[in-house]
Formats: sequence, C-alpha cells, structure tokens
Amino acid sequence: MTYCVGMMLDQGLVFMSDTRTNAGLDNISTFRKMHIWEDSGERVITLLSAGNLATTQSVISLLDERSKAPECRSPTVLAAESMFQVAQIIAGTLQEVIQQRTEVGQSSEKSFDATMILGGQIRGGTTRLFLIYPEGNFIEAGADTPFFQIGEIKYGRPILVRAYHPTLDFSAALKLMLVSFDSTLRANLTVGPPFDYHCYEADTFTRGPCGRVESDDPRFLTISEGWSDALKRALEELPSF
Amino acid sequence: MTYCVGMMLDQGLVFMSDTRTNAGLDNISTFRKMHIWEDSGERVITLLSAGNLATTQSVISLLDERSKAPECRSPTVLAAESMFQVAQIIAGTLQEVIQQRTEVGQSSEKSFDATMILGGQIRGGTTRLFLIYPEGNFIEAGADTPFFQIGEIKYGRPILVRAYHPTLDFSAALKLMLVSFDSTLRANLTVGPPFDYHCYEADTFTRGPCGRVESDDPRFLTISEGWSDALKRALEELPSF
Repeated sequence: MTYCVGMMLDQGLVFMSDTRTNAGLDNISTFRKMHIWEDSGERVITLLSAGNLATTQSVISLLDERSKAPECRSPTVLAAESMFQVAQIIAGTLQEVIQQRTEVGQSSEKSFDATMILGGQIRGGTTRLFLIYPEGNFIEAGADTPFFQIGEIKYGRPILVRAYHPTLDFSAALKLMLVSFDSTLRANLTVGPPFDYHCYEADTFTRGPCGRVESDDPRFLTISEGWSDALKRALEELPSF
Repeated sequence: MTYCVGMMLDQGLVFMSDTRTNAGLDNISTFRKMHIWEDSGERVITLLSAGNLATTQSVISLLDERSKAPECRSPTVLAAESMFQVAQIIAGTLQEVIQQRTEVGQSSEKSFDATMILGGQIRGGTTRLFLIYPEGNFIEAGADTPFFQIGEIKYGRPILVRAYHPTLDFSAALKLMLVSFDSTLRANLTVGPPFDYHCYEADTFTRGPCGRVESDDPRFLTISEGWSDALKRALEELPSF
C-alpha cells in the first residue's frame, strides 16, 4: 500500500508521500514515490504515485527518457505548454504501460494498476492539481475539493477534512499532513516512514522546500506524541453527551 | 455498509451502531442493527451486526425463536451458562445461515457474509466482548484490544485509537463514539444516522441507558460542529514543523 497527499493552498502546493512498498506483508521495501521535474524559472512539476511499483517506475522512466534531450522534448512534461497537457501526457503514458502488461497476456493476483497525483505550475498558468486514474483519465482539484489522497486514504482523511483551510501556510500544512500520515501508519502496516515532502510556492517556478521526514525525526515524534494529548484535550472540551 | 463499535470500559460495556443499509447507493433504508436480550437480574446480551441484512436478520430471528419459550431455551442465548457459550451459539447460527445460502447454490455479486460484535454479562461471570466472523469463529477483547469495530471501520478508527481509555465514563465514551461515527458518515454515504446506543453497567445484570441519536439531535450537532473547531485548536497547539 501507499499513502500520498497533494494539497492546494493559497500559498502554493504541498505534497507528501510515504516510501513503503510491499509485495505481501513479509516483503517490504523503501522506494521514493515522489518525482519532481524542474525547469527552473519556467516550470515545476511534482508527481506522486500509488499502486503497482513496476508500473509507476516504468511511467517515470518513460517520461524521464523522453525529457532528457531538449530536442526530443515534444511531447514531454518539460515541453508541454500547460499543466493540462502534462496531465494528458502522464495519463496517456500510465494507461499505455498498464495496457502493455494486459496485452501480453500477463495476469497476476495483484493488478498492474496505479493512480497518481500531479501538481505544478508552468509560466503563464496558475498552480494546478490533478488526480490521474489507471484508465488514463483524470480530474482536477478546485475550491470544493482542494486536496487529493491516493493509496490508503481512509484513516488519514477525517483530520484533513476537518482541519484543512486554503489559508494554511506550508508549516501548518506539513503539520496537518504529518498528523494524517501518523494516523494512517498507526493502523496500516503497509504505510511507513520516511515521508517525502515538497512545498511549491506559487509563481516562483522553482522547486520549493523539500526533504524527507525520518521515523526518528524529533519534529515528527513531537507531533505524533503531542497529537494524542491534544486530541484528548479537544474531546474533553466538547460538551458531554 | 455499516459502522458499529463495541467497547470495554472499567464501568461496563458501551455499544453504538448506525442504521443505514443499502443495496446499491440508490437504494438505502433504515434498519436497527443492535439487538438486546435481557433476563433482568440474570443476564444482558447485546449484539451488533454488519453485513448482509438478510443474513443478520435471519440469525436474530432464529436466536429469538429459540429463546421465546423457557422450556425450549437450551441451547439458547438466554439459557447458556457463560458468555463464551453465547458466542458459540451465535457464531454457529451465523455460520449455519451463511452456509445454507451457499449450499442451495445461491450466488450473488454481494456476499452473504456478516460480522457481529457480541457483548454482555451473565451472573457469575465478568463482562465480555467478542467479535464473531462469518466463518463461525470469534475472538475476544482484552486489555490490549479493548474495542471492536465492524463495517466501515477506517475513518473512525484514529480517534478511537488515540482517545480511548478504560477509565472513560459512559458519557465520555458516547461522546468519543459520536465523534468516531461523525468522521465516518462525513466520508462514507452508506453509514448514516440515527445511531443506536446501549451502555451496560457492569454487575447490574439489567439493561442500562440506551436510546437513539437522531441526525438533528442537538447533542450530536454540538459535538459534530464543535469537533472541527476543537481539532483545529488542537492542531494549532502542536509545535510547527
């Protein structure tokens, strides 16, 4: 399993992904599920992926290969003229990779499917956030649904639904996401640290603060341990039934 | 879908169940999923059910029919000598009902499965809480795992994991459960109010406070609306990342 969140804020876009992959509960590994393409001053694109690891790695590699030489950049994520076109390219590649597995008659207990969150900004456009389905179609976030989750979405959803607000700054949004991730990993063994994050500040067209939160990161431990107490106090504050 | 919780506390047992059933998203109904058997001064048994409604109703009716006439009470939930025996009877009946459907060659897109939470006390024994599987086997709650959830368990789990404590009184436990139910129904349309509850006080051998929380119950609305603010404050209190 996997847990990834992409969020639109007034300040920009925030992304977080876990790094645990598993083929059965007795076979876990650590893989990066966040990929960033940057053409500094011109565009920054972040992609989070959940699902079959061979599929998502294949999609990233195909997109990468096609982006390396500037003369081959069309149609690539580094040459597309809008985030909508980037979404079309990635969705097409994803659907193509999945279809290849199916066409060669491969079958597996597990599906070859994958789902992706795509967000970024290209000079001349606004920040945009998409959720890409394995079928090759996608939806875009807006004011009504300003964040997307993929993977094990349920445990971490209630806190996002309640505490999200577009005016959150990056620091508060990362705190909110870490609480959401902590709730998830306490309940599902197939979601695990470290967590990768990237905060893209709108209209900078440059990679923003990004990094990795390890399981023993004191900032994460403080949030994880403090949250139980904070929740208990919050519950006490509510009127009795 | 369904959401039910059964919880062991020092004070006794608390149960809550939603009432929404659905055959597809366009066909929803309201059914009681909590059933209480009482032999006042001698035993109180509460059963919560999730899964195929025909299966769970059939189980309840079979158990009821066998309990009506005292002379036919063996082996019934009102005559069994321990909660363990009650669990065996109910688990056996459940497995029998599911097997009947399968044996007559019925097949359906949906399964005939059901899962149940059983809790109660019989004079001479302590309060006990069981989770009964469709296969006819069951597990018992203890100090390490003091509550069970069935149905749509994920959205409402993080708050239970964080805020549960065996010293909670009934009022605080119901508040906690309502927060958990509210988180669930905000995310899953197939869980819905009203909610039934029953608080059995240990060693009373009499039905405790029980009732129904409607969606417009002011106590529920206060908790539901107050919780968002309480959570936001709790998040603000945490140190920034």
